[in-house]
Amino acid sequence: MRDAAALDADDRLAPWRDEFVIPADLVYLDGNSLGMTPTRTSGAVRKVVEEQWPTDLITSWWEHDWLNLPLTVGDELAPIIGARPGEVVVNESTTVCLFQLVNVAIDLTGHDAPVIAVADTEFPTDRYIVDGIARLRPSVTVRRGLDDLAGASVVVRSLVDYRTAELHDVRAETARARAAGAVTVWDLSHAAGVVAVDLADSKVDLAVGCTYKFLNGGPGAPAFSFVRTELHDRVTQPIWGWFGQRDQFAMDNPFDARAGIGRMMNGTPSVLGLTAARAGISVTAEAGIDAIASKAAALANYALDLASELGLTCSTARPPASSGGHISILHHDAVALQQRLADRNIIVDKRDPDVLRVGLSPLTTRFVDVHVALTALAELIDS
Amino acid sequence: MRDAAALDADDRLAPWRDEFVIPADLVYLDGNSLGMTPTRTSGAVRKVVEEQWPTDLITSWWEHDWLNLPLTVGDELAPIIGARPGEVVVNESTTVCLFQLVNVAIDLTGHDAPVIAVADTEFPTDRYIVDGIARLRPSVTVRRGLDDLAGASVVVRSLVDYRTAELHDVRAETARARAAGAVTVWDLSHAAGVVAVDLADSKVDLAVGCTYKFLNGGPGAPAFSFVRTELHDRVTQPIWGWFGQRDQFAMDNPFDARAGIGRMMNGTPSVLGLTAARAGISVTAEAGIDAIASKAAALANYALDLASELGLTCSTARPPASSGGHISILHHDAVALQQRLADRNIIVDKRDPDVLRVGLSPLTTRFVDVHVALTALAELIDS
Repeated sequence: MRDAAALDADDRLAPWRDEFVIPADLVYLDGNSLGMTPTRTSGAVRKVVEEQWPTDLITSWWEHDWLNLPLTVGDELAPIIGARPGEVVVNESTTVCLFQLVNVAIDLTGHDAPVIAVADTEFPTDRYIVDGIARLRPSVTVRRGLDDLAGASVVVRSLVDYRTAELHDVRAETARARAAGAVTVWDLSHAAGVVAVDLADSKVDLAVGCTYKFLNGGPGAPAFSFVRTELHDRVTQPIWGWFGQRDQFAMDNPFDARAGIGRMMNGTPSVLGLTAARAGISVTAEAGIDAIASKAAALANYALDLASELGLTCSTARPPASSGGHISILHHDAVALQQRLADRNIIVDKRDPDVLRVGLSPLTTRFVDVHVALTALAELIDS
Repeated sequence: MRDAAALDADDRLAPWRDEFVIPADLVYLDGNSLGMTPTRTSGAVRKVVEEQWPTDLITSWWEHDWLNLPLTVGDELAPIIGARPGEVVVNESTTVCLFQLVNVAIDLTGHDAPVIAVADTEFPTDRYIVDGIARLRPSVTVRRGLDDLAGASVVVRSLVDYRTAELHDVRAETARARAAGAVTVWDLSHAAGVVAVDLADSKVDLAVGCTYKFLNGGPGAPAFSFVRTELHDRVTQPIWGWFGQRDQFAMDNPFDARAGIGRMMNGTPSVLGLTAARAGISVTAEAGIDAIASKAAALANYALDLASELGLTCSTARPPASSGGHISILHHDAVALQQRLADRNIIVDKRDPDVLRVGLSPLTTRFVDVHVALTALAELIDS
């Protein structure tokens, strides 16, 4: 296998590291949980907190177009996930967006006794949301497992498995669900900003995702919702607030959902959250998702080669079967190993009980970072 | 009536203006829509964006206790609304919190065919939320009007009317609803930070409110949810996310709501939004809600006296029948008048078609500001 330093020297994305604040001597391999801070973010946030808000106050909602920020940022995010303009809105948490879209999916099917199919190994929030909806709407039942979709109305599914980094075939799986009569809600949380997913071309109906991982939008940054244009007029989401109303400031009307993706909006959006998310998204948009996805694959292949050479056990397949966003290393002592790596200023993630997740965030992760971390891990295991 | 300058000279809260960024020559009377910027906010936000996030990255969730920020800030807000520790959580938008609590209220009543009562004049989002829930849950019906609560299961009601500033008797109205068998969800959006409401003492069950008005938490700052301690174990909210789970990082369990008010949490909270909200809330907490409410009443009385002297028509009653947070002036040409005041650097709010809302935010509004604004308004009307 090639030398890490040589791979870094050849890496055309390497200069993008300068767009991030990177602490000296830190090897950070957890961008799949919380992305690093773009250098441009503090200026963007300061502009809101130190100029727009204090100076222009309420008029900022119009003067600085805060009112449309969820849609503006959505349009800036759209190309990264292969969405068309007007198909993405950024606001609220992933949990809330999932709740909205799973309810939308149920209504789109028109089934009297809708069945939601979700994998047992799905990320907790996705499973919880589905179970919560089944409690709220007694006509809904939940089925565990996605092998047989016969009779399913809605499929809720992560595009990338948060433990193994397995990447599903979005086009084929959307079509398989559709053939079974089911609408799929894709969760792109572990995919957006690292996988070159093409939602429009893959005929995806509904998707959500988060912006604080590979999109580097900041802690608790708002999530995004995607609805295919052709469905907009048929979509009625369940949380009706004044930002989802056609004429927001006509205060006496009954609720009438606004046209387009804006109907997914609820309450007053977090301007600070959106501002930091926008800064993060802009870095990815400029660097280009194809180049990023390509480096993710290269990083993952390098990490898997090195892990194999070092005798580490991985549960992650090679790209394109995995996203490239992280590799998972299995070890019974994962918790202690994570801590001992942290003592050496090497940050990786863990998932109880036995998974170490080594995050590969193409804009900030160098091949040498992977080398340092896996070598240290192997040493710790051997010692 | 007394001279505005003399009233300002006697105002014990006057020094608190120094805690805010206040543009020179601006008369801002719209703190009831978006509060001004506390001077401490930029430092607090910078600390997150320029120190904690870039340096400590994912470990900040533990090292800086971001994980508990919604609860920490909730406890700091609690005394301002007369809540006890552990009864308030700050996160998500008011719309989402309302959606959660109205669903909670429905479930608490245990009725098979729940009836939600809401006033026709209620703030749009509150009406929309209720109608959206009735669509989502076919067993639910909505009744307009609060005069007769017989047969009502849930009452949704703003403590302060957003148009007239009318302040309801929270204790008496909660008791009246309870006597009719109904649970009340109070919306404190136009009350929190300006009215000395005492939720615990008034035996309130459920309440929501916003932090970007009188609490000066910033544009789109997160909302708060209040649930009376005695109800916590009986509360199941509908949006099940990993932050509402008892053991958040045990990834294989079915959903099990965490103990206490934390069960109202959903997804990953906005650390930036919470940080700015916390800064704003801290100013109000330090100044003291009783002193603030007292000044609000004095400002409203002064404004009503002056409006009367100037021949302006008001729809706002004197405190304590109104909150003191704003007075509403009726004029058929409200839209044009608002703009002409803005041309003179005087910012007030309007509600179509004929209401000018003059916001009275006790920590930032001087009596002279009211004098300047109302005098200018009378001049414009006369000219």
